[in-house]
Amino acid sequence: MPPVITFLSDYGVSDDFVGVCHGVIATVCPQARVIDITHGIPARDVRAGAVVLREALAYMPRGIHLAIVDPGVGGDRRAVALRLADGRLLVGPDNGLLWPAAQAAGGPEQAVDIGRSRFALEPVSATFHGRDIFAPVAARLAGGAELAQAGEACESGGLTRLELPRPRVEAGTLVAHVLYVDQFGNLQLDAEDREVSDIAVGQRVTLRVGSRTWEARRGRTFADVDAAELVVYEDSYRRLAIAVRNGSAAKRLALAADGEVRISAVDK
Amino acid sequence: MPPVITFLSDYGVSDDFVGVCHGVIATVCPQARVIDITHGIPARDVRAGAVVLREALAYMPRGIHLAIVDPGVGGDRRAVALRLADGRLLVGPDNGLLWPAAQAAGGPEQAVDIGRSRFALEPVSATFHGRDIFAPVAARLAGGAELAQAGEACESGGLTRLELPRPRVEAGTLVAHVLYVDQFGNLQLDAEDREVSDIAVGQRVTLRVGSRTWEARRGRTFADVDAAELVVYEDSYRRLAIAVRNGSAAKRLALAADGEVRISAVDK
Amino acid sequence: MPPVITFLSDYGVSDDFVGVCHGVIATVCPQARVIDITHGIPARDVRAGAVVLREALAYMPRGIHLAIVDPGVGGDRRAVALRLADGRLLVGPDNGLLWPAAQAAGGPEQAVDIGRSRFALEPVSATFHGRDIFAPVAARLAGGAELAQAGEACESGGLTRLELPRPRVEAGTLVAHVLYVDQFGNLQLDAEDREVSDIAVGQRVTLRVGSRTWEARRGRTFADVDAAELVVYEDSYRRLAIAVRNGSAAKRLALAADGEVRISAVDK
Repeated sequence: MPPVITFLSDYGVSDDFVGVCHGVIATVCPQARVIDITHGIPARDVRAGAVVLREALAYMPRGIHLAIVDPGVGGDRRAVALRLADGRLLVGPDNGLLWPAAQAAGGPEQAVDIGRSRFALEPVSATFHGRDIFAPVAARLAGGAELAQAGEACESGGLTRLELPRPRVEAGTLVAHVLYVDQFGNLQLDAEDREVSDIAVGQRVTLRVGSRTWEARRGRTFADVDAAELVVYEDSYRRLAIAVRNGSAAKRLALAADGEVRISAVDK
Repeated sequence: MPPVITFLSDYGVSDDFVGVCHGVIATVCPQARVIDITHGIPARDVRAGAVVLREALAYMPRGIHLAIVDPGVGGDRRAVALRLADGRLLVGPDNGLLWPAAQAAGGPEQAVDIGRSRFALEPVSATFHGRDIFAPVAARLAGGAELAQAGEACESGGLTRLELPRPRVEAGTLVAHVLYVDQFGNLQLDAEDREVSDIAVGQRVTLRVGSRTWEARRGRTFADVDAAELVVYEDSYRRLAIAVRNGSAAKRLALAADGEVRISAVDK
Repeated sequence: MPPVITFLSDYGVSDDFVGVCHGVIATVCPQARVIDITHGIPARDVRAGAVVLREALAYMPRGIHLAIVDPGVGGDRRAVALRLADGRLLVGPDNGLLWPAAQAAGGPEQAVDIGRSRFALEPVSATFHGRDIFAPVAARLAGGAELAQAGEACESGGLTRLELPRPRVEAGTLVAHVLYVDQFGNLQLDAEDREVSDIAVGQRVTLRVGSRTWEARRGRTFADVDAAELVVYEDSYRRLAIAVRNGSAAKRLALAADGEVRISAVDK
């Protein structure tokens, strides 16, 4: 089968940034197939890009995984290509964007600094490394080039980390944190659904943020609660999430990424 | 040639929903070619999705046609795959979305309930059947699996219908209805242009909605009338349509989907 | 390798226009690979489309280059297909859209009027020549049809021109013009960065528009200046550009496409 390059960025669909990267890839490695994961990551939101990349990667064929959310382009941050334990290759800025996806796959086994890659398009611009470095490196790797040829070996242990929060249980209460907030104001948490598996669907739940509390209901989906009611459910990535039916849980609970919420059954 | 999967949804381009479905398809059936019809159907607007699917399908190569506008995901609605008389296979929720397209091709010849398909990705989530059921089933069908293998046979006559209005003629007046309203406020009608073929381009036309009337002009395109003037023309799907040049006909006539409008020549 | 068709338009991603053109191409020439440059050109902005097409084309594999920004569809403007000196074929409306790209490649060597092409989908609609003329002609050319077969030969010298401004130097001052304004209000100029190569990065620069002046700084990227400060830099297409960090240079300088700005070093 043809090699696969997946592509995630914050480039949006108004400009030709995505199309130009596709053109570069097709020029360098015509046989590569490109799958766009999304280009709708909020501009410069490295953390949102990192979370989406980690979650989406599990559904992608193994290949070269190009990810670009790069507010520091042209600055000091490194550009890297990584080989993961499962054989996937990640290409992007070393600003934390690749870290959670790499960790989920067992961590990087090999890392290469591609900032001065021989595969780059010269002259390399100061503002569009997607076109000039990341896309051509990904395309050359898709074409069969060795990772070691893409740049200078660097310590995979020295990569920029982006640590996401982890849930814990305190006296029967699940203490979870917001991983990210989607466009509807739904709150994706770091906890998995099975961590509240003792709370039955339909049961009432107390949510506590700081000193404030709300009542919610455990559901399978939004439709399990009334309009404007809070629901705690398993989202499509099998993570625990909080939503307001036809509303914004982020606004209701005044929570943003990293915010902490305590979840417990009412009648427990 | 490689098998073709066309894909229409209301998933939008902000999130990774579309990309993840592409990833699933490429994993299950790497040789399939995916053509995105659009992912810009207004959220949860089954009827708009049904109209666009029916109209667009005529321009798509024969293949597997995946369509997802699914406000009832996780609820009681069935998930189905259909074989049409012209050989096309449709995959999507049984909520009416597929009905007009199926009818336009002579109706479904075979129907399978894929809600518990062996081709689904397990565990099936409650909220993302696009990824877990529809995309993998479409990909397996593209890969050559038999429709009967995709699920349990069901009565094709028992599918959920979505009846669109039909025009009629009353005493020389065409009584038409709004099929759908596009983003510019143009009104696509259920009538075809030939039903007003006796009204010459340039001729004045009376539009009546309830007890109110407007004067419009028969044209070939917006440019045939002055700014802010109403024009009755054949739209790109060869259906009769009403527009206001540089404005919104939906607002001017206060019409929405299913609304009725009477069209007659002024000097007739 | 499979033939490549690149595709640029102002069709947007809400409707099925782009998807239907993809469907037509896949029907006529299944082996063609389509690369979407962008469909986010502002509606009816021929000039913006022309600038983006010219800049992006350098990064596209040689092939058939379909471009549609066509406010005059259905009117008198011609539909054309052109062969450039570098072997690329351009297909689109003859309204200036193709002109800058053709000039950048040495000009058209052969031009064909495809308004009544035998390759068109009949009946040709009045409002969607992308589907009915441009896409099928591009697909047939991708499939190996001769350009001369696509329509009637016409004078390549008679094509509609779209002349973009050119910079000049007057007494040590660079007189440049706005080529186009992007969604952030950044001003892309007709000058190239090397025309201010005597101004060092970090040096102060005077911008004069009419009788008003502003102070800016020469930088490599936005990050080289403070928030709300004006920066003169080389943009990703290697053209000189003016931006306000975290703001809109178009608003600050009250400049739009074709506007003139005079740039000189402060201490020169």
